[in-house]
Amino acid sequence: MERTLVFDLDGTLVDSVYQHVLAWHGALQRAGIGVSVWRIHRRIGMSGGLFVERLLRETDTEPRPGLADSLRDAHAEIYNELDASVTPLPGARALLQELTDRGVPWAIATSGALRTAGPVLERLGVPEGVPVVTRDQVPYAKPNPDLFLRAMEKLRIDPRHGVVVGDSVWDLLAARQAGMLGVGVLSGGYGEDELNRAGAYRVYEDPEDLRLHLDELCVGRGT
Amino acid sequence: MERTLVFDLDGTLVDSVYQHVLAWHGALQRAGIGVSVWRIHRRIGMSGGLFVERLLRETDTEPRPGLADSLRDAHAEIYNELDASVTPLPGARALLQELTDRGVPWAIATSGALRTAGPVLERLGVPEGVPVVTRDQVPYAKPNPDLFLRAMEKLRIDPRHGVVVGDSVWDLLAARQAGMLGVGVLSGGYGEDELNRAGAYRVYEDPEDLRLHLDELCVGRGT
Repeated sequence: MERTLVFDLDGTLVDSVYQHVLAWHGALQRAGIGVSVWRIHRRIGMSGGLFVERLLRETDTEPRPGLADSLRDAHAEIYNELDASVTPLPGARALLQELTDRGVPWAIATSGALRTAGPVLERLGVPEGVPVVTRDQVPYAKPNPDLFLRAMEKLRIDPRHGVVVGDSVWDLLAARQAGMLGVGVLSGGYGEDELNRAGAYRVYEDPEDLRLHLDELCVGRGT
Repeated sequence: MERTLVFDLDGTLVDSVYQHVLAWHGALQRAGIGVSVWRIHRRIGMSGGLFVERLLRETDTEPRPGLADSLRDAHAEIYNELDASVTPLPGARALLQELTDRGVPWAIATSGALRTAGPVLERLGVPEGVPVVTRDQVPYAKPNPDLFLRAMEKLRIDPRHGVVVGDSVWDLLAARQAGMLGVGVLSGGYGEDELNRAGAYRVYEDPEDLRLHLDELCVGRGT
């Protein structure tokens, strides 16, 4: 069975998780909602809608009309100020190039919106023709499987042949729901055990470490 | 045996770890040194000297005269810009107050320097007379036991009666070397398993969760 890879973006290919975390923290502080930073970190990567809903519930904040939208706007504004410090993770570009060279199809599927994901996709040098699915394109984000299933549709490959690579438990839960294999990376700042418990088949440090172990994922076999 | 508590500061009593992480990341970027943010997160809490040394070694950066000092200065400068967003962690003030009310002696021991720790100590409302040990006061920081041993000296209590409360594996390793019990909190953003493997006797979510379980630590027994 020849496999294909679907990558999460933030924390998996680009080093942007901590900037997103502090941008959400700033947006919540502006709205007068106090949430500990580590709790935001543990929600990052799930759908923005679910994320906001859950934090409001945890902090006993009454949902106000327009609150979710204004939080998302403030997050995008603060994140864009921090964006200059965001770079591809070590080995990310080389990994994607190696997959392309080996003839292994791959795609990107992110819970992020196009307005924040756009600049980092450019920095990553994603070639023309590679499917990129953003939050804007599906009704439900992770841990729902929609993003990954849409990516497999665009690749025209059966999900059972797909491997999800992600840094968060939401990627791994969404992978399981999509019937795909899940592989974790530590570069989003979660503990190895959290990823294992969420069903990671293997956990690597970052894209460079994954690239050195590609054969464990049965991709590009026989080339 | 009546116990006493020695607290780490960043990530344990105040919600400042992610700001410190991004400040170190910015300082390293200014010096032209690229290190993934999660790797910085995993080093936070160890001595600044060890931390810089280790990152330079990991990134194959030639140590230049004055580099460590200029990194520390840039870190302090960037951190102070982010400092306005730093607040006490949930339950931190109530926990310290409850210990004081129960007559349980406590202290704070941080790998941070006084120039960055000063403002958050104020926000925490640490009463006069509580021993506070900063990096400036001991020759070696965590994972060396010096900070915790100095705190116990100031409290005039045998280290074997002391419980270290910290968010990072360096706190727990330093606790073991000091012959003290180590208790972890998740509020610094590390995984529970990482803290358990480093020898945590118990792991709580944050100071509020610890406060609700104080009796598990045998403090203030009989009062």
